[in-house]
Amino acid sequence: MSVVPVCYPERTIRYMNITFEPIGFIHSPFKEKFGIPRQPGLVPEARASLELVPPYNRPEAVAELEGYSHVWIQFVFHQILHEQWRPRVRPPRLGGNRRVGVFASRSPFRPNPIGLSVVALERVVVDGDRVVLELSGVDLLDATPVLDIKPYIAYVDSIPDAVSGFAPSAPDLRLEVGFSELAEGQLEAREDGAALRPLITRLLGLDPRPAYAAEDGRVYGFRLHDFDLRWQVDGDQVQVLELRPASSS
Amino acid sequence: MSVVPVCYPERTIRYMNITFEPIGFIHSPFKEKFGIPRQPGLVPEARASLELVPPYNRPEAVAELEGYSHVWIQFVFHQILHEQWRPRVRPPRLGGNRRVGVFASRSPFRPNPIGLSVVALERVVVDGDRVVLELSGVDLLDATPVLDIKPYIAYVDSIPDAVSGFAPSAPDLRLEVGFSELAEGQLEAREDGAALRPLITRLLGLDPRPAYAAEDGRVYGFRLHDFDLRWQVDGDQVQVLELRPASSS
Repeated sequence: MSVVPVCYPERTIRYMNITFEPIGFIHSPFKEKFGIPRQPGLVPEARASLELVPPYNRPEAVAELEGYSHVWIQFVFHQILHEQWRPRVRPPRLGGNRRVGVFASRSPFRPNPIGLSVVALERVVVDGDRVVLELSGVDLLDATPVLDIKPYIAYVDSIPDAVSGFAPSAPDLRLEVGFSELAEGQLEAREDGAALRPLITRLLGLDPRPAYAAEDGRVYGFRLHDFDLRWQVDGDQVQVLELRPASSS
Repeated sequence: MSVVPVCYPERTIRYMNITFEPIGFIHSPFKEKFGIPRQPGLVPEARASLELVPPYNRPEAVAELEGYSHVWIQFVFHQILHEQWRPRVRPPRLGGNRRVGVFASRSPFRPNPIGLSVVALERVVVDGDRVVLELSGVDLLDATPVLDIKPYIAYVDSIPDAVSGFAPSAPDLRLEVGFSELAEGQLEAREDGAALRPLITRLLGLDPRPAYAAEDGRVYGFRLHDFDLRWQVDGDQVQVLELRPASSS
Protein backbone atom coordinates (compact mmCIF):
# COMPACT_ATOMS: atom_id res chain seq x y z
CA MET A 1 0.00 0.00 0.00
CA SER A 2 1.26 3.47 -0.75
CA VAL A 3 -0.12 6.95 -0.71
CA VAL A 4 0.31 9.14 -3.72
CA PRO A 5 -0.31 12.91 -3.51
CA VAL A 6 -2.23 14.07 -0.49
CA CYS A 7 -3.54 17.56 -0.04
CA TYR A 8 -5.97 17.72 2.74
CA PRO A 9 -6.70 21.30 3.75
CA GLU A 10 -9.76 21.63 5.96
CA ARG A 11 -12.86 23.01 4.28
CA THR A 12 -11.48 23.17 0.77
CA ILE A 13 -11.53 20.57 -1.96
CA ARG A 14 -9.86 17.48 -0.63
CA TYR A 15 -7.91 15.08 -2.70
CA MET A 16 -6.04 11.92 -1.95
CA ASN A 17 -5.01 8.87 -3.93
CA ILE A 18 -4.29 5.61 -2.25
CA THR A 19 -2.75 2.65 -3.98
CA PHE A 20 -3.53 -0.88 -2.91
CA GLU A 21 -1.90 -4.13 -3.83
CA PRO A 22 -3.68 -7.49 -3.78
CA ILE A 23 -2.77 -9.80 -0.93
CA GLY A 24 -3.99 -12.81 -2.89
CA PHE A 25 -6.14 -14.14 -5.70
CA ILE A 26 -9.25 -16.30 -5.96
CA HIS A 27 -9.35 -19.68 -7.69
CA SER A 28 -13.00 -20.26 -8.51
CA PRO A 29 -15.07 -22.45 -10.85
CA PHE A 30 -16.77 -19.26 -12.11
CA LYS A 31 -14.91 -18.13 -15.22
CA GLU A 32 -17.34 -15.46 -16.36
CA LYS A 33 -19.86 -13.11 -14.77
CA PHE A 34 -22.94 -14.87 -16.12
CA GLY A 35 -23.87 -17.77 -13.86
CA ILE A 36 -22.28 -16.45 -10.66
CA PRO A 37 -24.70 -16.43 -7.72
CA ARG A 38 -26.02 -12.90 -7.23
CA GLN A 39 -24.98 -12.80 -3.60
CA PRO A 40 -22.67 -14.88 -1.43
CA GLY A 41 -24.27 -17.64 0.66
CA LEU A 42 -27.01 -18.40 -1.89
CA VAL A 43 -25.10 -21.41 -3.22
CA PRO A 44 -23.28 -23.18 -0.36
CA GLU A 45 -21.97 -25.71 -2.90
CA ALA A 46 -19.96 -22.97 -4.65
CA ARG A 47 -16.42 -23.51 -3.40
CA ALA A 48 -13.32 -21.50 -4.14
CA SER A 49 -9.91 -20.94 -2.66
CA LEU A 50 -7.98 -17.80 -1.85
CA GLU A 51 -4.22 -18.07 -2.27
CA LEU A 52 -2.08 -15.45 -0.60
CA VAL A 53 0.81 -14.04 -2.66
CA PRO A 54 4.22 -12.79 -1.50
CA PRO A 55 4.97 -10.93 0.74
CA TYR A 56 1.57 -11.62 2.36
CA ASN A 57 1.74 -15.43 2.34
CA ARG A 58 2.90 -15.60 5.94
CA PRO A 59 1.39 -18.35 8.06
CA GLU A 60 1.39 -16.13 11.15
CA ALA A 61 -0.89 -13.61 9.39
CA VAL A 62 -3.74 -16.18 9.39
CA ALA A 63 -3.06 -17.54 12.90
CA GLU A 64 -6.35 -18.22 14.74
CA LEU A 65 -8.44 -17.37 11.68
CA GLU A 66 -9.85 -20.91 11.79
CA GLY A 67 -11.73 -19.92 14.95
CA TYR A 68 -14.15 -18.06 12.68
CA SER A 69 -16.83 -19.79 10.60
CA HIS A 70 -17.12 -16.88 8.17
CA VAL A 71 -14.85 -14.20 6.75
CA TRP A 72 -15.29 -10.98 4.82
CA ILE A 73 -13.48 -10.85 1.52
CA GLN A 74 -12.81 -7.35 0.19
CA PHE A 75 -11.89 -7.64 -3.45
CA VAL A 76 -11.56 -5.79 -6.73
CA PHE A 77 -14.12 -6.13 -9.51
CA HIS A 78 -11.22 -6.70 -11.87
CA GLN A 79 -13.21 -7.41 -15.02
CA ILE A 80 -14.69 -3.93 -15.12
CA LEU A 81 -11.68 -1.91 -13.99
CA HIS A 82 -11.65 0.13 -17.15
CA GLU A 83 -15.34 0.96 -17.12
CA GLN A 84 -16.88 4.15 -15.81
CA TRP A 85 -18.88 4.19 -12.61
CA ARG A 86 -22.60 4.79 -13.00
CA PRO A 87 -24.53 7.05 -10.60
CA ARG A 88 -27.63 4.93 -11.20
CA VAL A 89 -27.75 1.20 -11.77
CA ARG A 90 -30.40 -1.42 -12.49
CA PRO A 91 -30.22 -4.22 -9.92
CA PRO A 92 -31.23 -7.68 -11.16
CA ARG A 93 -33.52 -8.07 -8.12
CA LEU A 94 -35.72 -5.34 -9.58
CA GLY A 95 -36.03 -7.12 -12.90
CA GLY A 96 -33.27 -5.04 -14.43
CA ASN A 97 -35.48 -2.15 -15.43
CA ARG A 98 -35.78 0.01 -12.32
CA ARG A 99 -32.88 2.30 -11.45
CA VAL A 100 -31.52 3.09 -8.01
CA GLY A 101 -28.47 5.01 -6.83
CA VAL A 102 -25.24 3.05 -7.10
CA PHE A 103 -24.66 3.48 -3.34
CA ALA A 104 -28.07 1.87 -2.71
CA SER A 105 -26.87 -1.19 -4.63
CA ARG A 106 -24.11 -3.79 -4.58
CA SER A 107 -23.44 -3.22 -8.29
CA PRO A 108 -19.79 -3.42 -9.41
CA PHE A 109 -20.01 -0.14 -11.34
CA ARG A 110 -18.97 1.97 -8.34
CA PRO A 111 -16.54 4.89 -8.09
CA ASN A 112 -14.10 2.54 -6.32
CA PRO A 113 -14.94 -0.94 -7.60
CA ILE A 114 -14.36 -2.75 -4.31
CA GLY A 115 -16.52 -5.79 -3.66
CA LEU A 116 -17.51 -7.14 -0.27
CA SER A 117 -18.64 -10.72 0.30
CA VAL A 118 -19.14 -12.77 3.41
CA VAL A 119 -18.24 -16.39 2.75
CA ALA A 120 -17.89 -19.55 4.84
CA LEU A 121 -14.35 -20.44 5.82
CA GLU A 122 -13.96 -24.18 5.44
CA ARG A 123 -10.27 -24.58 6.16
CA VAL A 124 -6.95 -22.76 6.28
CA VAL A 125 -4.19 -24.70 4.55
CA VAL A 126 -0.59 -23.79 5.31
CA ASP A 127 2.10 -25.74 3.50
CA GLY A 128 5.47 -24.02 3.61
CA ASP A 129 4.92 -20.65 1.95
CA ARG A 130 1.62 -21.74 0.40
CA VAL A 131 -1.15 -20.16 2.44
CA VAL A 132 -4.62 -20.96 1.13
CA LEU A 133 -8.11 -20.33 2.50
CA GLU A 134 -10.77 -22.78 1.36
CA LEU A 135 -14.10 -21.01 1.03
CA SER A 136 -17.69 -21.91 0.27
CA GLY A 137 -20.84 -20.00 -0.60
CA VAL A 138 -18.81 -17.77 -2.89
CA ASP A 139 -19.99 -15.35 -5.57
CA LEU A 140 -16.46 -14.67 -6.78
CA LEU A 141 -15.04 -14.74 -10.28
CA ASP A 142 -11.89 -16.74 -10.95
CA ALA A 143 -8.68 -14.67 -10.61
CA THR A 144 -10.35 -12.00 -8.47
CA PRO A 145 -7.68 -9.89 -6.71
CA VAL A 146 -8.28 -9.77 -2.96
CA LEU A 147 -7.43 -6.69 -0.90
CA ASP A 148 -8.31 -7.87 2.58
CA ILE A 149 -9.65 -10.71 4.72
CA LYS A 150 -11.48 -9.87 7.93
CA PRO A 151 -13.11 -12.17 10.47
CA TYR A 152 -16.92 -12.08 10.58
CA ILE A 153 -17.78 -10.94 14.09
CA ALA A 154 -21.42 -11.85 14.69
CA TYR A 155 -22.12 -9.43 17.53
CA VAL A 156 -20.99 -6.52 15.33
CA ASP A 157 -21.72 -7.57 11.74
CA SER A 158 -25.01 -9.43 12.16
CA ILE A 159 -28.08 -7.19 12.26
CA PRO A 160 -30.98 -9.56 11.51
CA ASP A 161 -33.62 -6.82 11.84
CA ALA A 162 -31.92 -4.35 9.51
CA VAL A 163 -34.36 -2.92 6.99
CA SER A 164 -33.12 -3.76 3.54
CA GLY A 165 -34.91 -1.61 1.00
CA PHE A 166 -35.72 -3.42 -2.19
CA ALA A 167 -33.90 -6.65 -1.21
CA PRO A 168 -35.91 -7.78 1.82
CA SER A 169 -35.36 -11.55 1.56
CA ALA A 170 -33.48 -14.28 -0.24
CA PRO A 171 -34.79 -15.11 -3.69
CA ASP A 172 -36.81 -18.34 -3.72
CA LEU A 173 -35.35 -21.45 -5.23
CA ARG A 174 -37.73 -21.49 -8.13
CA LEU A 175 -36.82 -23.93 -10.86
CA GLU A 176 -36.59 -27.71 -10.93
CA VAL A 177 -33.40 -28.97 -12.55
CA GLY A 178 -33.05 -32.11 -14.68
CA PHE A 179 -30.15 -33.51 -16.69
CA SER A 180 -30.20 -34.79 -20.28
CA GLU A 181 -28.83 -38.24 -21.00
CA LEU A 182 -25.73 -36.62 -22.51
CA ALA A 183 -25.19 -34.43 -19.43
CA GLU A 184 -25.74 -37.43 -17.10
CA GLY A 185 -23.05 -39.38 -18.92
CA GLN A 186 -20.66 -36.44 -18.84
CA LEU A 187 -21.21 -35.96 -15.11
CA GLU A 188 -20.61 -39.64 -14.43
CA ALA A 189 -17.39 -39.61 -16.43
CA ARG A 190 -15.92 -36.81 -14.30
CA GLU A 191 -14.05 -37.33 -11.07
CA ASP A 192 -15.77 -34.26 -9.60
CA GLY A 193 -19.19 -35.36 -10.88
CA ALA A 194 -20.62 -36.07 -7.42
CA ALA A 195 -19.80 -32.52 -6.27
CA LEU A 196 -20.80 -30.92 -9.56
CA ARG A 197 -24.38 -32.20 -9.60
CA PRO A 198 -25.58 -30.32 -6.46
CA LEU A 199 -23.62 -27.21 -7.52
CA ILE A 200 -25.23 -27.12 -10.95
CA THR A 201 -28.66 -27.94 -9.50
CA ARG A 202 -28.51 -25.04 -7.05
CA LEU A 203 -26.98 -22.57 -9.54
CA LEU A 204 -29.59 -23.18 -12.23
CA GLY A 205 -32.46 -23.59 -9.76
CA LEU A 206 -31.94 -19.94 -8.80
CA ASP A 207 -32.45 -19.00 -12.46
CA PRO A 208 -29.34 -17.06 -13.43
CA ARG A 209 -31.04 -15.44 -16.42
CA PRO A 210 -31.44 -11.67 -16.23
CA ALA A 211 -35.17 -11.03 -15.82
CA TYR A 212 -35.29 -8.81 -18.92
CA ALA A 213 -33.69 -11.50 -21.09
CA ALA A 214 -35.36 -14.65 -19.78
CA GLU A 215 -36.62 -16.69 -22.74
CA ASP A 216 -38.08 -20.14 -22.60
CA GLY A 217 -36.55 -22.61 -25.04
CA ARG A 218 -33.43 -20.55 -25.68
CA VAL A 219 -30.14 -22.33 -25.03
CA TYR A 220 -28.00 -20.51 -22.48
CA GLY A 221 -24.44 -21.31 -21.58
CA PHE A 222 -21.74 -20.22 -19.21
CA ARG A 223 -18.28 -21.40 -18.41
CA LEU A 224 -17.92 -23.42 -15.21
CA HIS A 225 -14.62 -25.10 -14.32
CA ASP A 226 -13.26 -26.36 -17.66
CA PHE A 227 -16.54 -26.72 -19.53
CA ASP A 228 -19.40 -24.73 -20.96
CA LEU A 229 -22.59 -25.57 -19.11
CA ARG A 230 -25.44 -25.52 -21.63
CA TRP A 231 -29.04 -25.48 -20.45
CA GLN A 232 -32.53 -24.29 -21.28
CA VAL A 233 -35.66 -23.41 -19.37
CA ASP A 234 -39.23 -24.53 -20.00
CA GLY A 235 -41.68 -23.04 -17.50
CA ASP A 236 -40.40 -23.98 -14.04
CA GLN A 237 -38.08 -26.70 -15.37
CA VAL A 238 -34.43 -26.36 -16.31
CA GLN A 239 -32.86 -28.99 -18.50
CA VAL A 240 -29.08 -29.31 -18.41
CA LEU A 241 -28.19 -30.17 -21.98
CA GLU A 242 -24.44 -30.60 -21.97
CA LEU A 243 -21.14 -30.05 -20.19
CA ARG A 244 -19.30 -29.11 -23.35
CA PRO A 245 -15.49 -29.06 -23.16
CA ALA A 246 -14.54 -25.38 -23.31
CA SER A 247 -11.88 -25.86 -25.98
CA SER A 248 -14.45 -27.03 -28.53
CA SER A 249 -16.90 -24.16 -28.02
CA MET B 1 -10.13 4.91 -9.62
CA SER B 2 -7.28 3.99 -11.89
CA VAL B 3 -5.12 0.97 -12.52
CA VAL B 4 -1.38 1.34 -12.55
CA PRO B 5 0.88 -1.45 -13.91
CA VAL B 6 -0.73 -4.83 -14.31
CA CYS B 7 1.10 -8.00 -15.17
CA TYR B 8 -1.04 -10.98 -14.57
CA PRO B 9 0.45 -14.15 -16.01
CA GLU B 10 -1.15 -17.34 -14.71
CA ARG B 11 0.92 -19.33 -12.22
CA THR B 12 3.74 -16.83 -11.86
CA ILE B 13 4.08 -13.98 -9.43
CA ARG B 14 1.18 -11.68 -9.94
CA TYR B 15 1.29 -7.99 -9.44
CA MET B 16 -1.23 -5.24 -9.74
CA ASN B 17 -1.64 -1.80 -8.25
CA ILE B 18 -4.98 -0.14 -8.00
CA THR B 19 -5.49 3.44 -7.04
CA PHE B 20 -8.60 4.58 -5.25
CA GLU B 21 -9.92 8.03 -4.57
CA PRO B 22 -12.16 8.91 -1.63
CA ILE B 23 -15.80 9.55 -2.48
CA GLY B 24 -16.26 11.53 0.72
CA PHE B 25 -15.04 12.28 4.22
CA ILE B 26 -16.37 11.71 7.74
CA HIS B 27 -17.21 14.52 10.16
CA SER B 28 -17.10 12.94 13.59
CA PRO B 29 -16.77 14.05 17.23
CA PHE B 30 -13.83 11.62 17.57
CA LYS B 31 -10.65 13.59 16.96
CA GLU B 32 -8.16 10.96 18.06
CA LYS B 33 -7.99 7.16 18.19
CA PHE B 34 -8.21 6.91 21.98
CA GLY B 35 -11.85 7.00 23.07
CA ILE B 36 -13.36 5.70 19.84
CA PRO B 37 -15.72 2.75 20.42
CA ARG B 38 -13.89 -0.47 19.55
CA GLN B 39 -16.57 -1.58 17.13
CA PRO B 40 -19.47 0.13 15.37
CA GLY B 41 -22.90 -0.20 17.00
CA LEU B 42 -21.56 -0.28 20.57
CA VAL B 43 -22.39 3.39 21.11
CA PRO B 44 -25.63 4.28 19.30
CA GLU B 45 -25.26 7.86 20.58
CA ALA B 46 -22.07 8.29 18.51
CA ARG B 47 -23.24 10.31 15.53
CA ALA B 48 -21.25 11.41 12.51
CA SER B 49 -21.89 12.56 8.99
CA LEU B 50 -20.43 11.50 5.68
CA GLU B 51 -20.13 14.26 3.11
CA LEU B 52 -19.64 13.26 -0.50
CA VAL B 53 -17.04 15.23 -2.47
CA PRO B 54 -16.99 16.11 -6.19
CA PRO B 55 -17.48 14.41 -8.59
CA TYR B 56 -19.31 11.87 -6.39
CA ASN B 57 -21.72 14.30 -4.72
CA ARG B 58 -24.53 13.44 -7.10
CA PRO B 59 -27.98 13.16 -5.55
CA GLU B 60 -28.93 10.35 -7.95
CA ALA B 61 -26.07 8.19 -6.62
CA VAL B 62 -27.84 7.94 -3.24
CA ALA B 63 -31.38 7.55 -4.63
CA GLU B 64 -33.37 4.98 -2.59
CA LEU B 65 -30.56 4.57 -0.05
CA GLU B 66 -32.96 5.76 2.65
CA GLY B 67 -34.84 2.47 2.26
CA TYR B 68 -32.00 0.87 4.23
CA SER B 69 -31.63 1.17 7.99
CA HIS B 70 -27.91 0.38 7.90
CA VAL B 71 -25.01 0.85 5.52
CA TRP B 72 -21.49 -0.46 5.18
CA ILE B 73 -18.78 2.18 5.16
CA GLN B 74 -15.50 1.11 3.58
CA PHE B 75 -12.85 3.59 4.58
CA VAL B 76 -9.15 4.24 4.89
CA PHE B 77 -7.34 4.11 8.24
CA HIS B 78 -5.76 7.41 7.31
CA GLN B 79 -3.88 8.06 10.53
CA ILE B 80 -1.64 5.04 10.07
CA LEU B 81 -1.09 5.23 6.33
CA HIS B 82 2.64 5.50 6.71
CA GLU B 83 3.00 2.63 9.14
CA GLN B 84 3.97 -0.93 8.24
CA TRP B 85 1.45 -3.73 8.38
CA ARG B 86 1.98 -6.32 11.10
CA PRO B 87 1.51 -10.06 10.47
CA ARG B 88 0.49 -10.47 14.13
CA VAL B 89 -1.47 -8.00 16.22
CA ARG B 90 -2.71 -7.75 19.81
CA PRO B 91 -6.45 -7.14 19.85
CA PRO B 92 -7.75 -5.10 22.80
CA ARG B 93 -10.44 -7.77 23.41
CA LEU B 94 -7.65 -10.14 24.44
CA GLY B 95 -6.25 -7.70 26.96
CA GLY B 96 -3.64 -6.46 24.54
CA ASN B 97 -1.12 -9.18 25.31
CA ARG B 98 -2.14 -12.15 23.18
CA ARG B 99 -1.23 -12.09 19.50
CA VAL B 100 -3.31 -13.33 16.59
CA GLY B 101 -2.86 -13.11 12.83
CA VAL B 102 -3.79 -9.72 11.38
CA PHE B 103 -6.37 -11.39 9.11
CA ALA B 104 -8.01 -12.90 12.21
CA SER B 105 -8.46 -9.36 13.57
CA ARG B 106 -10.04 -6.03 12.65
CA SER B 107 -6.80 -4.21 13.48
CA PRO B 108 -5.91 -1.21 11.27
CA PHE B 109 -2.33 -2.44 10.72
CA ARG B 110 -3.26 -4.45 7.62
CA PRO B 111 -1.48 -4.81 4.28
CA ASN B 112 -4.24 -2.66 2.75
CA PRO B 113 -5.52 -0.47 5.59
CA ILE B 114 -9.18 -0.55 4.55
CA GLY B 115 -11.72 -0.40 7.35
CA LEU B 116 -15.21 -1.82 7.28
CA SER B 117 -17.99 -0.62 9.59
CA VAL B 118 -21.71 -1.17 9.58
CA VAL B 119 -23.48 1.93 10.88
CA ALA B 120 -27.08 3.06 11.19
CA LEU B 121 -28.26 5.41 8.46
CA GLU B 122 -30.36 8.12 10.10
CA ARG B 123 -30.99 10.39 7.15
CA VAL B 124 -29.80 11.34 3.70
CA VAL B 125 -29.60 15.10 3.23
CA VAL B 126 -29.46 16.49 -0.28
CA ASP B 127 -29.19 20.25 -0.64
CA GLY B 128 -28.03 21.28 -4.09
CA ASP B 129 -24.63 19.70 -4.54
CA ARG B 130 -24.28 18.98 -0.83
CA VAL B 131 -24.96 15.30 -0.33
CA VAL B 132 -24.61 14.17 3.28
CA LEU B 133 -25.39 10.90 5.07
CA GLU B 134 -26.20 11.24 8.77
CA LEU B 135 -24.94 8.17 10.63
CA SER B 136 -25.08 6.78 14.14
CA GLY B 137 -23.32 4.04 16.03
CA VAL B 138 -20.04 5.05 14.42
CA ASP B 139 -16.48 4.08 15.34
CA LEU B 140 -14.99 6.51 12.85
CA LEU B 141 -12.29 9.11 13.33
CA ASP B 142 -12.92 12.65 12.13
CA ALA B 143 -11.71 13.30 8.55
CA THR B 144 -11.72 9.58 7.65
CA PRO B 145 -11.62 9.19 3.85
CA VAL B 146 -14.45 6.96 2.62
CA LEU B 147 -14.01 4.67 -0.38
CA ASP B 148 -17.47 3.18 -0.67
CA ILE B 149 -20.99 3.04 0.75
CA LYS B 150 -22.99 -0.17 0.38
CA PRO B 151 -26.48 -1.00 1.61
CA TYR B 152 -26.68 -3.56 4.44
CA ILE B 153 -28.69 -6.46 3.04
CA ALA B 154 -29.86 -8.52 6.01
CA TYR B 155 -30.53 -11.76 4.17
CA VAL B 156 -26.96 -11.77 2.89
CA ASP B 157 -24.91 -9.91 5.50
CA SER B 158 -26.55 -11.08 8.72
CA ILE B 159 -25.31 -14.46 9.98
CA PRO B 160 -26.37 -14.52 13.64
CA ASP B 161 -24.98 -18.03 14.22
CA ALA B 162 -21.55 -17.35 12.77
CA VAL B 163 -18.80 -18.59 15.07
CA SER B 164 -16.63 -15.66 16.02
CA GLY B 165 -13.37 -16.93 17.48
CA PHE B 166 -12.13 -14.78 20.34
CA ALA B 167 -14.88 -12.15 20.02
CA PRO B 168 -18.01 -14.17 20.78
CA SER B 169 -20.17 -11.41 22.26
CA ALA B 170 -20.47 -7.70 22.88
CA PRO B 171 -18.41 -6.39 25.78
CA ASP B 172 -20.52 -5.68 28.87
CA LEU B 173 -21.28 -2.14 29.90
CA ARG B 174 -19.17 -2.29 33.01
CA LEU B 175 -18.61 1.06 34.63
CA GLU B 176 -20.96 3.53 36.25
CA VAL B 177 -20.42 7.10 35.12
CA GLY B 178 -20.78 10.23 37.25
CA PHE B 179 -20.03 13.89 36.55
CA SER B 180 -18.10 16.32 38.74
CA GLU B 181 -19.69 19.64 39.63
CA LEU B 182 -17.37 21.35 37.14
CA ALA B 183 -18.30 18.92 34.37
CA GLU B 184 -22.03 19.28 35.20
CA GLY B 185 -21.79 23.03 34.82
CA GLN B 186 -19.85 22.75 31.56
CA LEU B 187 -22.42 20.33 30.14
CA GLU B 188 -25.30 22.63 31.11
CA ALA B 189 -23.62 25.62 29.49
CA ARG B 190 -23.37 23.88 26.13
CA GLU B 191 -26.09 23.85 23.51
CA ASP B 192 -25.34 20.20 22.76
CA GLY B 193 -25.20 19.26 26.46
CA ALA B 194 -28.37 17.15 26.38
CA ALA B 195 -26.94 14.98 23.59
CA LEU B 196 -23.44 14.92 25.05
CA ARG B 197 -24.38 13.44 28.41
CA PRO B 198 -25.61 10.05 27.09
CA LEU B 199 -22.74 9.90 24.58
CA ILE B 200 -20.11 10.44 27.27
CA THR B 201 -21.88 8.06 29.65
CA ARG B 202 -21.90 5.23 27.12
CA LEU B 203 -18.35 5.90 25.87
CA LEU B 204 -16.78 5.87 29.32
CA GLY B 205 -19.04 3.11 30.65
CA LEU B 206 -17.42 0.77 28.10
CA ASP B 207 -14.03 1.62 29.64
CA PRO B 208 -11.92 2.89 26.76
CA ARG B 209 -8.66 2.21 28.61
CA PRO B 210 -6.41 -0.40 27.05
CA ALA B 211 -6.46 -3.38 29.43
CA TYR B 212 -2.67 -3.32 29.83
CA ALA B 213 -2.66 0.36 30.81
CA ALA B 214 -5.74 0.60 33.03
CA GLU B 215 -4.85 2.42 36.22
CA ASP B 216 -7.25 3.51 38.91
CA GLY B 217 -6.88 7.13 39.97
CA ARG B 218 -4.95 8.17 36.86
CA VAL B 219 -6.46 11.05 34.89
CA TYR B 220 -7.15 10.11 31.28
CA GLY B 221 -8.22 12.45 28.53
CA PHE B 222 -9.21 12.40 24.93
CA ARG B 223 -10.43 14.94 22.48
CA LEU B 224 -14.17 14.88 21.77
CA HIS B 225 -15.79 17.58 19.62
CA ASP B 226 -13.98 20.80 20.62
CA PHE B 227 -12.95 19.81 24.14
CA ASP B 228 -10.67 17.45 26.03
CA LEU B 229 -12.76 15.05 28.05
CA ARG B 230 -10.91 14.38 31.30
CA TRP B 231 -11.92 11.50 33.55
CA GLN B 232 -10.68 8.95 36.02
CA VAL B 233 -11.70 5.51 37.19
CA ASP B 234 -12.09 4.22 40.72
CA GLY B 235 -13.13 0.56 40.84
CA ASP B 236 -16.33 0.29 38.78
CA GLN B 237 -16.97 4.05 38.85
CA VAL B 238 -15.90 6.64 36.30
CA GLN B 239 -15.83 10.27 37.28
CA VAL B 240 -15.98 12.83 34.49
CA LEU B 241 -13.74 15.62 35.74
CA GLU B 242 -13.87 18.27 33.09
CA LEU B 243 -14.75 19.22 29.51
CA ARG B 244 -11.66 21.32 29.02
CA PRO B 245 -11.62 23.65 25.98
CA ALA B 246 -9.10 22.11 23.58
CA SER B 247 -7.26 25.38 22.95
CA SER B 248 -6.14 25.63 26.58
CA SER B 249 -4.84 22.08 26.85
